[in-house]
Amino acid sequence: MLIVGELINSSRKAIAQALEARDEAYLKDLAKKQVEAGAHIVDVNCAIFMEKEPEVMEWLVGIVQEAVNVPLCIDTPNVAAMEVGLKCHKGRPMINSITGEKKRWDDMIPLVSEYKPQVVALCMDDTGMPNSVEDRLRVADRLVNGLVQAGLPEEDIYLDPLIKPVGVSGTAAIEVVETTRILKEKYPKVHVISGLSNISHGLPVRKVLNRAFAVMCVQAGMDAFIADPLDRHLMSLFYAAEALAGRDKNCLQYIKASRAGKVVAE
Amino acid sequence: MLIVGELINSSRKAIAQALEARDEAYLKDLAKKQVEAGAHIVDVNCAIFMEKEPEVMEWLVGIVQEAVNVPLCIDTPNVAAMEVGLKCHKGRPMINSITGEKKRWDDMIPLVSEYKPQVVALCMDDTGMPNSVEDRLRVADRLVNGLVQAGLPEEDIYLDPLIKPVGVSGTAAIEVVETTRILKEKYPKVHVISGLSNISHGLPVRKVLNRAFAVMCVQAGMDAFIADPLDRHLMSLFYAAEALAGRDKNCLQYIKASRAGKVVAE
Repeated sequence: MLIVGELINSSRKAIAQALEARDEAYLKDLAKKQVEAGAHIVDVNCAIFMEKEPEVMEWLVGIVQEAVNVPLCIDTPNVAAMEVGLKCHKGRPMINSITGEKKRWDDMIPLVSEYKPQVVALCMDDTGMPNSVEDRLRVADRLVNGLVQAGLPEEDIYLDPLIKPVGVSGTAAIEVVETTRILKEKYPKVHVISGLSNISHGLPVRKVLNRAFAVMCVQAGMDAFIADPLDRHLMSLFYAAEALAGRDKNCLQYIKASRAGKVVAE
Repeated sequence: MLIVGELINSSRKAIAQALEARDEAYLKDLAKKQVEAGAHIVDVNCAIFMEKEPEVMEWLVGIVQEAVNVPLCIDTPNVAAMEVGLKCHKGRPMINSITGEKKRWDDMIPLVSEYKPQVVALCMDDTGMPNSVEDRLRVADRLVNGLVQAGLPEEDIYLDPLIKPVGVSGTAAIEVVETTRILKEKYPKVHVISGLSNISHGLPVRKVLNRAFAVMCVQAGMDAFIADPLDRHLMSLFYAAEALAGRDKNCLQYIKASRAGKVVAE
């Protein structure tokens, strides 16, 4: 399983302020903490800076790569910021994200061809947010075919089925679970990834919903998460769910994590 | 969802001691705490007392029913203790358990016919513990047919697929999840119940595995659990999992529980 640490995101107030103040120490520390806690990739998002986003992205990628020795996930819908991020990133990054929307696709696909990053591809197109399993599968097919045609191996594709809040749609979680199960059957080499937290939007004690949803997604075969690795209960459940789903031979990773103090009950 | 509070069980040392000392206050308090925390039924087990079990069961049922206003689950493989428990229980109890083993079936079925309790029926027979989904389904068919023939409505049957430790068999959790899904499709009125904790036998930080397994079981349609209601993280995940599984319209039970302080993140 792959964990993309989600915390360096400018939609969070503390991060926006730290970015504004170019608070290198704070951001580096947060990157390090996420990696220590189990993040395999660190997400970097500075989308609120609008026309200054490329400049901030260049600075951010630079300082975070000084702090940690894992790939970053360049997280932006802005092509100029994405290109800057890809250009200055040392080694091969992940990008978040491409979609099936025509303009976004046409803008991003040359960057995919040139830099061959790992790619998060959202299951939406110009018809808007998906409303069913079928919507997601239809867009997923186009995304996988298009990315493979652009030269990307299936192993580098991370399909994001897109999460709606369960408070808005009672079937939101079930749809994602079902989509994941079908996608993993159809494309065993392609990964399925999600940002968990949208599921709990508008509801109380969101972390608990996010954690339960994470377990359901693991069981369905989801193998990558954009998540908060500092939530120790969430990380504990990830280890447990992998063992229960039969993806951790002899529970060795679970036992190892528990010995390292990474599986906690309280 | 139905929660059977599992804590008054003589296999736990503190309980064995309290039963030995006839410590009424301690046992009553534990029954009350479980009901306050969300147990709908309180399990009572005094199986370690062997030939004295019927006598202890009579006392135990009496004092626990003085303390709480919910049905008890008379938990014993011993027919004499079961009969005493059924006889002295006020109102209709649950019993745990009947199996497909010939002797146990023949012993217990007259009690089922006479007292019409809710019945936990374990998916095992004289061939031993089930080793596959098919084993469980085969025994489940016989149990459901036999219990219905004995006059029990399907709604009063709780099939227990039986949990093996995931540390022993990597497919232990998946088999139970799959069995549950099929049983709920085949017998929508029959309940599926489990004691969670066997899944984590022999592994560290057992509660975390039990919790993740609970979420997977809820998603598969399991609707009753023999569990520790004092584990607030477990109970929180139950509420969340029901909402995510689409079994809590507009997340109302989740919201209500969170307002009552029953959904906790830390």
